[in-house]
This record gives sequence, C-alpha cells and structure tokens, in this order.
Amino acid sequence: MNIKTADLFALGRVATLSSRPTLRSITSPLVNKSIWDRRRFSSLEKGREFRKGIISDSIVKQQVRMASKITDWVKQGDTSGEFKRQASSFREWISTEPGARFPPEKGRYHLYVSYACPWATRALIARKLKGLEDFITFSSVHWYMGEKGWRFPTPEDTDAAGENVIPDPVPGHESYTHLRQLYFGVDPEYKGRFTVPVLFDKKANTIVNNESSEILRMFGTAFNDQLPPEYAKIDLYPEELRAHIEDAFGWTYDDINNGVYKSGFATTQEAYEGNVKKLFDALDKAERHLRETGGPYWFGDRITEVDVRLFPTLIRFDPVYVQHFKCNIRDIRSGYPHLHNYTRNLYWKNAAFRDTTNFLHIKNHYTRSHTQINPHSITPLGPVPDILPLDEEVEAVKAALAK
Amino acid sequence: MNIKTADLFALGRVATLSSRPTLRSITSPLVNKSIWDRRRFSSLEKGREFRKGIISDSIVKQQVRMASKITDWVKQGDTSGEFKRQASSFREWISTEPGARFPPEKGRYHLYVSYACPWATRALIARKLKGLEDFITFSSVHWYMGEKGWRFPTPEDTDAAGENVIPDPVPGHESYTHLRQLYFGVDPEYKGRFTVPVLFDKKANTIVNNESSEILRMFGTAFNDQLPPEYAKIDLYPEELRAHIEDAFGWTYDDINNGVYKSGFATTQEAYEGNVKKLFDALDKAERHLRETGGPYWFGDRITEVDVRLFPTLIRFDPVYVQHFKCNIRDIRSGYPHLHNYTRNLYWKNAAFRDTTNFLHIKNHYTRSHTQINPHSITPLGPVPDILPLDEEVEAVKAALAK
Repeated sequence: MNIKTADLFALGRVATLSSRPTLRSITSPLVNKSIWDRRRFSSLEKGREFRKGIISDSIVKQQVRMASKITDWVKQGDTSGEFKRQASSFREWISTEPGARFPPEKGRYHLYVSYACPWATRALIARKLKGLEDFITFSSVHWYMGEKGWRFPTPEDTDAAGENVIPDPVPGHESYTHLRQLYFGVDPEYKGRFTVPVLFDKKANTIVNNESSEILRMFGTAFNDQLPPEYAKIDLYPEELRAHIEDAFGWTYDDINNGVYKSGFATTQEAYEGNVKKLFDALDKAERHLRETGGPYWFGDRITEVDVRLFPTLIRFDPVYVQHFKCNIRDIRSGYPHLHNYTRNLYWKNAAFRDTTNFLHIKNHYTRSHTQINPHSITPLGPVPDILPLDEEVEAVKAALAK
Repeated sequence: MNIKTADLFALGRVATLSSRPTLRSITSPLVNKSIWDRRRFSSLEKGREFRKGIISDSIVKQQVRMASKITDWVKQGDTSGEFKRQASSFREWISTEPGARFPPEKGRYHLYVSYACPWATRALIARKLKGLEDFITFSSVHWYMGEKGWRFPTPEDTDAAGENVIPDPVPGHESYTHLRQLYFGVDPEYKGRFTVPVLFDKKANTIVNNESSEILRMFGTAFNDQLPPEYAKIDLYPEELRAHIEDAFGWTYDDINNGVYKSGFATTQEAYEGNVKKLFDALDKAERHLRETGGPYWFGDRITEVDVRLFPTLIRFDPVYVQHFKCNIRDIRSGYPHLHNYTRNLYWKNAAFRDTTNFLHIKNHYTRSHTQINPHSITPLGPVPDILPLDEEVEAVKAALAK
C-alpha cells in the first residue's frame, strides 16, 4: 500500500482491508473495543456491510456507540474504572554497530512531539541536553487531541504558539493532517495508540521507536562519536548509578509519571482514591529523597535520566494535575519545598528543561481535550504563575518570614 | 389545595393545575424555561395533552429536552455562559411589633438548611451565635441535589452524617421527600428555585423567609427580649458600623459569595475568566483590608454580619472552590495569609462557625451534584486537611522557617 492510500485509509476515506470483519465480530456485544476496531468499522465500511444486508442499522449504531475512541481513556466496559496504559509498539534503536539498520546519521531522523505530552518532552529535553539540535530535527503537533488523536498544526492555527509547531515537515508527508497517518503509513495494520514521541527515519521512511524511555536512552549515547566533548561526556545513564536509577524508575514511573494519569482518568471513586494515595506516597518519598541528597539533581550534582523523566510530570503538576486530575492533596509550590526547588532549579537554570516547556500547550491540551473530565473545556486561569521564579515564594512564606 | 395533594403534585404524580398551558406556550420554540414550566409539563400532564391530540409526540419530546432542570445552572439558550442567581421569593419578617404576623415565639419556627450550602450556613451560624438553639429548631437536608432539588434524608441514609440530618421533622410533613414539597405546600404556584435556607412557621404552616441575608438580620435582633444578656447584647449589625457593613456587602456578595458560583458555573471561557478575575481582585482587596484591621474579625474586635457572610465562602474555598469551581489562581492557605488566619480563627475559636461546618456535606454536595462540571462525580481527596489547625502551616512555610 503506498503512502497516499494508507493516508486516506487512515482517515476512513477508503476501506481497503486485508482482513475482513466477520459477522461474529460485528454482532457480538462483547466486541474488541480497540482502535483497530474503529478502523475496521469506518463509516464507509459499515455502509457497505449494511447495504449488503450483513448487518442491520441498529447493529451499526450500536457498533458506533460501543467502538472505543482514542479519547476513551478507561476502556469501555472496564468496571474497575482504571486507566491502563498500553505498551509502545516500535522498539528499534539507533546504533553504531556495524551494519545497524539505523545508524547515527546526522539529519536523518525526525522527532515528533507534543509540547503538551510529558512522555514526548523527555525526548525533547534529552535532544537539547545532549546538543543534538543539528542532528535530529523535531516538530510539535497541535495541543488539541480530538477523536482522531493528535493533529498537525495548519498555517491557519493561531492558538498554538511555540518553536516548530508546524505541519508535518517530512518530505512525502505533505498530505498528513493527523499523526495517525504517520503510523498507518508505516504499518497499515497498526493496532496501537497514536502516541508521541515518535522517532522517525526520514531516509527509510519508517518509525524507529515510539517508546519515550528508549528514545531518551538512545539520545544519551547514539551520537556521542560525532558530538563535541562537552556534550559527548554528558552521561545520563552512568554505569555506577544504574542500580539506583533503575530503582528510582521502579516506583516513579508507576506512581508518579503514570500515577497522575491513573488518578485523573479514573472513572470510579475507588480507582481514583487508590491511585491518588499511591501518587502522594511516592511524592512524599521523592521529597524525602531530595531533602537527603540536597539536589540540585536527583543524585546530587549529577544529572541523569531520572531528572529528565521526573521533570515533565513535576512541571505540569501545579498547572494541570492538581485541578484537572484532582491530584490535590497538596500542590508542589506550597506542599513540597524540596520538590519545588528541584523543579524550579531544572526549569530556571537549564535551557534544556525551560525551552522545552510550553505552558500554553500543556494547559490547553489537558483541559480542552479531556471533555469526559471537563465538559465545558474551560481552562483554569490558575495557578499564577505557572512556575514561581527562583527568588519567589507563595504568599504564606513571605508573610511568615516577614514576622 | 391541601398539603397532601400539593405534595404529590410537586413530585409530578398528579397534575391539578389552576392555569392550563396554552397551545401557544407549548409549541413556541422560545418556551419560558423556568422551573414552573417543568411543573406544568409534568409527564402525566403531557401525556394527557398528547392523548387529547393537543400536542404531538415530537413537541412533547422537544419540550422535555428544552425544559430547564434545577441543575441547569446556566439558563439554556443563554449564550453568555453566565450563571445568574434568582432572587428569593419569601420575604416576611419575625417582628416584635404589636400585631405582627410572625411574632418571636419560642419553638414556633424551624430552619431548613443544607450543611453544604454557604447561604444556608449563614443562618445556622447566626442561630448559634445568638444563642437561639432553644428558640428555633433546625434540620439539614441530604447533601445530594438531584434534578428534583434538595431531598430529605431517609433513615436508610448512611452517607450524610451530621447533627439533625433528618427527615422533615415538622408535623404534617411526614410524606415529604423533597424540599420542593415544602414550597409547593405553601404555594402551589411557586415559580422560584427550591433553595435553603427556609425559615418556616410551624404554627401558621407557611414559609416566613428564604433569603439568607434577611434571616441572618432577623436572627440578630428578633428574639433579643427573651435572650440572656450575653446573647442579647451581640449586635451583628451595629448602628455605627452600618455604612461600612453595607459597603463591604456591596462587593463581597457579588464578587466573592456569588463570585465563586459565577466562576464555577460559567459555561464559556470568557464568562469564567471575567468572573474569576473579579473574584481574585476581591480576595486581594479583602486580604489588604484584614492586614490593615488586624482581625480577628472583619472590623477588628467586633463580630458583625460581614464575618457571618464571608466565612461560609472562605471555609469552602480550598476544599471545593479551588478545584471544583476552578478558582485556582491561588488557594487561601498558601496564597492569602490574612484571609487564612481570619478563617482559621473563626473556625477554631468559635463553635458557632466550627459546629455549623460539615466538610462531608460540603465536599460531596458540589462534586457529586454538579455532573455538568464533574461527570464521574469523583470527590477529590485533597486538600488535606480541610482546614489547617491554628498552629500549623503549609510545608513551604515550615521549610522556610526552619532555614
């Protein structure tokens, strides 16, 4: 299938399928509610089945009602009310090994991100930390995620300012309006979610990797041979700290990075409470850790992957997660002084963190895309400011110090 | 109409109407979307009109769709997205004047409140401040407000603990399940909202007043002749401060008490932003005022109606309004040290404020009744605690003082 067709197909305009839906799968009330199902039952597709008399009108309507949307964060029919994150699908590596499929060629790879997405931001931070700006191009999608997932900005968009918030700049992708087309262009039978980050190989026209932790790891070393020493020497995953790093990942991923989502996307009180308690237990633990090590980085004076992975969640915490995801047992600025200073130090003292943070995209994305949480799509004005300057504190601190 | 009938009628079980809906009013697309309309077009009523061939099925359906619900906080079709509070309807007074319709008789009046409602809580605070516990009985409705409005608790309710959270205790009201029955029992043609507080005359079986500011004013003096001097002397509206009190009401009502609702019920970004900015301007002004007067009360060492009217909004601010109503430019505990101490002093040092505050009712009511704001009805766990003890501060303050 050429890209043009995959492209149209992905948008449901044509319906050329290798595997046909069976009658059983159409009529079963327990349909497999994956994205794939939605593709299979595109409206044209359904129309044809209907005309052929294979399925009845009411079944089509039921199917449309039951088919999961990309914005169904808790799987329909899952009575636990729990958000369960799907594993990423593309897991190849840029490697210096002889004969590697993806060698570290300057200018060959493109990184698709959303400034809104904390996972994508990891990759963007690593790109800048390692001085890879001239090696890997990048662009950001628009912050709004509708039923078709992330979309590319158009020249008409005036509400999504930011560096490289542009239409898909990769040659051959001129017709792409949505990120899903990138995935279907590479794999017409793709069944996963259409997520960022995506590390794309412009030469082979394929996706290398869409797992943020792996892209971060890759960026840490893959281009070292070509980098000036001050960048090459930055080791985000140093041998002697690996056990500690993995230990930190063990709980910070589940309970913090993903914990905010599990709290916010929960559809039952029970699921929410269980997850939000775990989240704040983990924040308490992180606070104690930083009090002991003293910062400015997780491991004291050495920056590592842990910092790159924690920061995107912490910088979004007060502006979004406290209100929108109900992670409000405390906020960072008033409730976690060490986490607060840690986040502020990274933001204000390191351009790799600051320049990859776009609060406009962050705030608008969550509050306007998740209508199941926020039906009127109103974006709260607070807290003000998004992040406090280094020499500022909340008013209660100023008042206490003035006494 | 006897109470029994009014009662059933109010619940839509029978439809005896004094004025019949005209064809014009039924078919007009610009129907008057008041509560009254909803009563007029009760399902039985509609069924009869339908059977008589006066209105068609589709018109009935349209009517049902368009009829406003008590939970439609912004009037349907109002493109401003603004919440506009309706004026209260019953405005009689308990008075010591000879021949007064409502004399200050001990035990004659009953106060209906909801612990959730800040307006009702004013009246409850005043009742306790003035030592009227033996003069005026009270009860609280259940915190949940559904489409039929406030309902009375049943003996089976186990999720609404609190003093006098009981079925309607007034003799003759045994069949009442919802507060609306109280209103219709008094006025079968009642067209307003079914709000608390309600000051009810058990002897004349009628509503005296349902305007919270007037009940508060009334309680301040009406029973003074019968009260022990320590209570009689409490003057919540002292002559010499009246100009200042009215001045404070001028902006605190609109921008704070009602401002949180106007922010939270806004259905457009524009309406939200305009109201939330005014709210925080007013909070800034209140903060400056308290910094100057020094507290513990609004006017220094004299408690007045201003304190009784401000407190119910301030005590709900962090637990509910910050998250649920998106009033999150700052919170009180970390962002307004003087308002924080003011609120804490009233709460912890005065039982009239503390004992009338029920956080269970407060948090559950807002987060679970307003499904237009919070579709999954999940009640946030934070902030913890609902109100800080007098000798506690947010963690950022403790850390700053420890330095």
